[in-house]
Formats: sequence, structure tokens, C-alpha cells
Amino acid sequence: MQIDFSTLPLRDVYSLMTTSIMPRPVAWVSTMSPGGRTNLAPFSFFQGVTANPPTLLIVPVNNRDGRKKDTARNIEETGEFVVNVVPFALAEQMNATASLLPAEESEFETFGIAQAPSTRVRPPRVAATPIAFECTLHLIVPVGEGPLAASVIFGRIQYAHIADDVLGPDGTPDPGKLDLVGRLGGELYTRTTDRFAIRRPDR
Amino acid sequence: MQIDFSTLPLRDVYSLMTTSIMPRPVAWVSTMSPGGRTNLAPFSFFQGVTANPPTLLIVPVNNRDGRKKDTARNIEETGEFVVNVVPFALAEQMNATASLLPAEESEFETFGIAQAPSTRVRPPRVAATPIAFECTLHLIVPVGEGPLAASVIFGRIQYAHIADDVLGPDGTPDPGKLDLVGRLGGELYTRTTDRFAIRRPDR
Repeated sequence: MQIDFSTLPLRDVYSLMTTSIMPRPVAWVSTMSPGGRTNLAPFSFFQGVTANPPTLLIVPVNNRDGRKKDTARNIEETGEFVVNVVPFALAEQMNATASLLPAEESEFETFGIAQAPSTRVRPPRVAATPIAFECTLHLIVPVGEGPLAASVIFGRIQYAHIADDVLGPDGTPDPGKLDLVGRLGGELYTRTTDRFAIRRPDR
Repeated sequence: MQIDFSTLPLRDVYSLMTTSIMPRPVAWVSTMSPGGRTNLAPFSFFQGVTANPPTLLIVPVNNRDGRKKDTARNIEETGEFVVNVVPFALAEQMNATASLLPAEESEFETFGIAQAPSTRVRPPRVAATPIAFECTLHLIVPVGEGPLAASVIFGRIQYAHIADDVLGPDGTPDPGKLDLVGRLGGELYTRTTDRFAIRRPDR
């Protein structure tokens, strides 16, 4: 099948991208409004950028009515956010926070998700998550306009909380103990249980 | 464990980011130098950005000696690249192309990887890959300086090739038929065989 993207309807582009570019890591992002209202929402357009300096990015896309998501607005206004990772045990709770709540309502309260204080930023982290990255805003790059248009938000990682029980013998997080989920297309996720190693080429 | 990123050595930052932000999709990127020499290299700092307009990004980080990768240089100079996805059956070949070859040498030739012509751009695609996205350069955002510093390369998707035998009944790629791999930390990958569905909340 050959597809010319200049003539493909928006809904088909989105569907094709999310079924082809995967598995995707999930950032469960906590933010706070200038008035102190917390927000929590998942994003699978998310990745590391560089270790030098420590930088990651998340991409909230506009709602289908073209409005900016609360997460993007809070980060623009306060310059702070926390990326919580999502193990299989928290996947149902994470999915619930994808609901479109009114901005005045906190997902932490509505869905009974326990929070813990952060160290360097105001937004709390998810208490049960094994890894949380506290970030400050570095740069926002807007891409597109209207429905599904993106705010590419670059964050500097300032501080991390890591549960001791997910660490392997070498002191880094162990994938089996972490048990993170990856996002596929539609309503599908994958676990990272079917692992294999390939020796990297000598350079 | 609490980690202050302002005092963490570069190698530890990189290791922590790649073991925590996962599973990551793999872009196997083909480019061409202005003189016509092809290049092929894998990147797991890669994601979709928005469907409106169709945009993805890849992040080649500098080599440890601070030099820019051939992929980043070719895209800067020609404005074109192809993202090939990586099923389990091609994982070994993909990994081989992570070798640091001299710029004059093509991974297609050195590793005997068959290529097929693209439709809208000059760099060829990998003949055996089930999905290839032909892209033109939209924007490069540099982040950091020196070793591991990043070129965040935004590409507009112009055209796609999709093998008919990976399509599901609804006409989009089926994850079981695609059998893509995800990148974890160290030398580990995951298959996407351990899937589950969660019904999205009503909005």
C-alpha cells in the first residue's frame, strides 16, 4: 500500500502514526496551575533527548476542539512538571486520568491517586510510581495549528526519585522489576516481559 | 534513592534515562549525502509529534568525541530522510548498522541490506521493512553541546510504504503482524507480544 500524506484525512494520519510508531513509553505528567490546582495526565508522545544536559520532552497535542490541554497550559504558566513512569500495576489508574475533567478538578482527588511531595518543583509526584523525574521548562516548540496540533515541551531533569526495589545489581533500574508498559495503537498496550539482548557492534 | 541531576556524572545520566524511559520505538533511518552515498542507522530517541500536519522527530546525539553523526549531517545538507520501522526479524541487521563506519562506507553495502527506491525523496528505503515513512526536514532544534548533545530533527511525513500483509481487518497496521521491537536499556530489547487492552475513559 502506498500512502500520499498530502491527501490523507487527519484521523487516518493519526491512526497510522500511532499504530506504526510504537511501542511508546508513557509519561504520566503531574503539573500545578498558578492557583495551586494539581493535574495528572498521560502522554505517549514522550522521550529522552540528551543526557548533556539532562533533557526530556513531552508532546501534549491539542484536544479535537483545538483547545490546549491543561498540562500544556500549566507548564507554560509555571515552568514546572513531573514525569512519573507507569508500571503494569498502575496502568488502569493511569488510563483513568486520560478523562477530560474540567480544569478545576484534580485527577489526584477524583481518582483517589496518592501524591507525594516533590523536592525541587511544586507539582507533586505520584506516590506509588517507582520513578519520578522533576523537570523545569527549557523550551516549547509549537508544531501545527488547531485540532491535534502539538506543543513540544522540552524539560530539564533536575531531580529524580527512584524506588530502591526496582534497582538491579548494577544500581540502575531493572526492566523486570520496573515492569513498565508501552503504548501501542488503539486501546492496546504492551508489557516489556518478552525481552531479548543483542550484543552491540564493536565500534 | 534520591538523585540530584546537577551533580550526576554524564554516563550515569545517560544510563538512568535509557533504563527508565522505555520501551522506545526504533527508527532505522536512511539518508544520502549530497554526493549520493547512502547511510543507514538506528535511533531509539524517536517519536511521532502530531498528525496535523504529519510530523515526527528523531534525535541523533553526537558521538562521544563530540562529532555529529552522519545521519544528522546528511539531513542538514539534503533535507531528506526515510524512517524504516524494525520488526523482530530485522533486529539483528538493524543492530549491525549501529557500527561506526567511516562516512564513505554505506551500511546498505557493508551489511548486505537490500534497498528499494523511495517515491518523494532521494534516500532509499529498506526493502524488507514493512513500513517506511518518507520525510522532508521541517526544523532542527539543537540541545546541549559536545558529547551526547542532541540534534532534534523534526520531519514532515510526505509519503509512506506499508506492506499489505501487516494490515489488520480495519486497514491499519496490526501489532501482531508487525511484530515491532522496542528498545530498553543496555543491550536489551522487548517484543510487543505481551499485549493487553484498556478501554479508554468516556470523554
